[in-house]
Amino acid sequence: MTEMHPQRWGDPAAATVLPDSALGLVELAFGLQDRPPVSGATPPPSALDDALLDDLRAAVGAEHVLTDDATRTIRTRGKSTPDLLRARAGDLDDAPDAVVRPDGHDGVEAVLAWAVEHQVAVVPFGGGTSVTGGLAARRDGFAGVVSLDLVRMKRLLAVDEVSMTATLEPGLRGPEAEALLAEHGLTLGHYPQSFRHASIGGFAATRSSGQSSAGYGRFDAMVVGLTAATPTGTLRLGSAPANAAGPDLRQLLLGSEGAFGVITSVTVRVRRAPAVTSYEGWRWPSFDAGSDAMRTLAQAGLMPTVLRLSDESETAINLADPSSIGGAEDPGCLMVTGYEGTDEQVAARRAAVTAVLAGLGGTALGTEPGERWAHGRFDGPYLRDALLDHGVLVETLETATFWSNRQRLYADVRAALTASLGEGSLVLCHVSHVYETGCSLYFTVAARQGDDPVAQWQAAKAVASDAIIAAGATITHHHAIGTDHKPWFAREIGDVGVRVLRAVKAELDPTGVLNPGVLIP
Amino acid sequence: MTEMHPQRWGDPAAATVLPDSALGLVELAFGLQDRPPVSGATPPPSALDDALLDDLRAAVGAEHVLTDDATRTIRTRGKSTPDLLRARAGDLDDAPDAVVRPDGHDGVEAVLAWAVEHQVAVVPFGGGTSVTGGLAARRDGFAGVVSLDLVRMKRLLAVDEVSMTATLEPGLRGPEAEALLAEHGLTLGHYPQSFRHASIGGFAATRSSGQSSAGYGRFDAMVVGLTAATPTGTLRLGSAPANAAGPDLRQLLLGSEGAFGVITSVTVRVRRAPAVTSYEGWRWPSFDAGSDAMRTLAQAGLMPTVLRLSDESETAINLADPSSIGGAEDPGCLMVTGYEGTDEQVAARRAAVTAVLAGLGGTALGTEPGERWAHGRFDGPYLRDALLDHGVLVETLETATFWSNRQRLYADVRAALTASLGEGSLVLCHVSHVYETGCSLYFTVAARQGDDPVAQWQAAKAVASDAIIAAGATITHHHAIGTDHKPWFAREIGDVGVRVLRAVKAELDPTGVLNPGVLIP
Repeated sequence: MTEMHPQRWGDPAAATVLPDSALGLVELAFGLQDRPPVSGATPPPSALDDALLDDLRAAVGAEHVLTDDATRTIRTRGKSTPDLLRARAGDLDDAPDAVVRPDGHDGVEAVLAWAVEHQVAVVPFGGGTSVTGGLAARRDGFAGVVSLDLVRMKRLLAVDEVSMTATLEPGLRGPEAEALLAEHGLTLGHYPQSFRHASIGGFAATRSSGQSSAGYGRFDAMVVGLTAATPTGTLRLGSAPANAAGPDLRQLLLGSEGAFGVITSVTVRVRRAPAVTSYEGWRWPSFDAGSDAMRTLAQAGLMPTVLRLSDESETAINLADPSSIGGAEDPGCLMVTGYEGTDEQVAARRAAVTAVLAGLGGTALGTEPGERWAHGRFDGPYLRDALLDHGVLVETLETATFWSNRQRLYADVRAALTASLGEGSLVLCHVSHVYETGCSLYFTVAARQGDDPVAQWQAAKAVASDAIIAAGATITHHHAIGTDHKPWFAREIGDVGVRVLRAVKAELDPTGVLNPGVLIP
Repeated sequence: MTEMHPQRWGDPAAATVLPDSALGLVELAFGLQDRPPVSGATPPPSALDDALLDDLRAAVGAEHVLTDDATRTIRTRGKSTPDLLRARAGDLDDAPDAVVRPDGHDGVEAVLAWAVEHQVAVVPFGGGTSVTGGLAARRDGFAGVVSLDLVRMKRLLAVDEVSMTATLEPGLRGPEAEALLAEHGLTLGHYPQSFRHASIGGFAATRSSGQSSAGYGRFDAMVVGLTAATPTGTLRLGSAPANAAGPDLRQLLLGSEGAFGVITSVTVRVRRAPAVTSYEGWRWPSFDAGSDAMRTLAQAGLMPTVLRLSDESETAINLADPSSIGGAEDPGCLMVTGYEGTDEQVAARRAAVTAVLAGLGGTALGTEPGERWAHGRFDGPYLRDALLDHGVLVETLETATFWSNRQRLYADVRAALTASLGEGSLVLCHVSHVYETGCSLYFTVAARQGDDPVAQWQAAKAVASDAIIAAGATITHHHAIGTDHKPWFAREIGDVGVRVLRAVKAELDPTGVLNPGVLIP
């Protein structure tokens, strides 16, 4: 698995190089600026002295306690645009002082015991793909910060093909987990855009939702059991698929972002690997018409495996090429529908969905737009890197609400982003997660970078977040709280909600060493 | 809505009278004993003096603070067999000292403030159908106990037919909620056996699951938002159908059994009321064969609206009449499949399910067994009353596990119950809630009452519960913890789980007035 440098996404060999035609478009829209990352930046010296680390080495093995600059560098922050911009400017101040790689639950417990003894902050590290500051722990009050790298915890611990469950270790990246399950003919079906790098532990700790959530469900809905190491002791949860034995405590660890404990194994519901996958495109005259069609499908219990819809702006950009941009043709709004399963399942579901969509006025576009989406589904972050290189500010944010509030939320967030980023900025949106009662809205923005692009984005994000909370929507549908979302999260759950989280934190992590500054307002 | 006397279930006018043929069977199986309830028992005098109650009267209105014996009597305990047996023996020691009926969230807050000030225990009361001791609060350490009756909180607060949600007050009984929703052509589809009496607040506070859970889902899966009054303040949760904004705090109130707060409104996902309902029977040669068929349906994503399966013993009893009992015919195991929805939906789902079941060796029995089940689906508790009158000990318990553990769990719990209740006792079982990864098991027992039937049942329940926990299953799939399940619940969630619950309780209810003794081990 490629380790990601904090200045960029993914594998350097897979980096996007913009073709001349696209560069021309970028120049037209934003002007071209040359904004290459600074090279040769190094993190500050480790704040943890050798005597203190010796205890840690004794606990997990000296070879698994790393303090070299390269290792610390690639464990610095996550993958939000501000994270990348800071690293590109040479700022690696949030680098951990050491990286520790325990092997298994007992090793994690040993690291936590050491951290409590020495008051060292611990940041669980899976794929490093947080886009909300989930890996930038607070330093003050601590002797230092260690990155608890789950890289050695990549086992498929158990498969139960009768119950259709699998128990996975948290360090498995998406493709690694799928490869192990594929040996049994199984799949998890969880494909967020970060799939190639993000980890099972991260999916659980952030309540991730994948691009096939319409068919496979959210990650939190897949989890039937989990084990977590906390400074207070071990939690082992999951005695049945569902029950009425008090509140569902699994749901308290799911979404806990490393602040309550380190998830050391997850038991998930799995499915038979699909024999057939098929992705198609549909054209809708408007975002409203397409959204209403999604709602109809969800409320009729007729969900495809993948269901997403781009608004007019995103559709136009996705179709943009030098010959068509600015043309007179109205592309409308592109919907992608995907079907996965057996031949029979795909045929039956496809027929039912097609009948509904055609009846509602959708225009079938065949498989080409769907397959094109599927082909590029994990590539967005590479394009962002290329655009950042050329001085374009690119970032995303997302939310969710109930259907009756969708139009207001869409309009308010668009207006807030446009007002903040100014004329010439682009604000695109799609719906990618659909429920009976509502849906997500995922916004992508592009603007010319100003002198301080981090501040430029933070200002836009703040007004958009204000609009989200004012509309009664959620500050995040699938990107978690991290450090970035805390002020709005506090407004979303209210004072009593915050107090509950603090009480749980105090009980499980009384000295506060677990990912300090993350999640808890 | 009929108020239930603590000695019996439901409406006296609807009580079951056993026909002579059934009485003959009962005599054959258990002998006939005459065990009529004692009459004229009254609760102990109220422990709350008038001066203290005057503050409460000032807060909610004098006419909504009741201390008469009749009102206190009908708010005593719940509806487990031990609850009935104690009341039948004249023991009303757990009667509340007063019954208070606030109107709305602010009224509940006022009651809680009064309770905290005077250190009075508060037991939220919806339908009074707990079968796990959820209404028998601990008295020691408190000036007294009030039953917080939600009877005045029965409004449909909002309907959103775009998002397909409804906001309901907690005091609505099942049929009352359905009647209000029916005015909009909507349904909740939540039909536990207690449906006719149990309340919306109770469904939420106990994570109830209804007989149509295969099609409509569990109650906790229906809830998209809720409001709760706690001594610490108000919690308002539910900004989206689903999100990644930290742990899902809704799940901490669902299943909290009145120990964390009083749920004052619930926003639930609703569906269009079905145009068609159809229930059918299938015969399987064995419980294993029928269970495997259920698993196949669930894992193929082909669930009917209702799916249940009786084991050989329960099937035989259900079919028993003087001409067939003990006969040579092997009735096998009866499965009930139910379909609800539009004509088209029912036809499509029925065809798909029928093809699978027939392919697996099921024998279609037509609609008669299904309609018979549907007709009597809420009547079990009336039959229990009639059997108690004749000296038969009848009670139920339930659990859930993953499919691969189902056979072991079934065998172990049956063996434990049979060993404890002795020769001549009956142990029946059915599966009534099915998931991709597992299912529930619901046991009914019948035995001749001994001299101390409460102790007789408690001994059987204890060994069955030990077997459940030893098998790694859950102590309750849909009956909650109450006071009865606490020792096994503590083993199920472990020491750290218990500490988390205590921490949340201490934060939301620092003086411990909310349903003391319930839920928290």
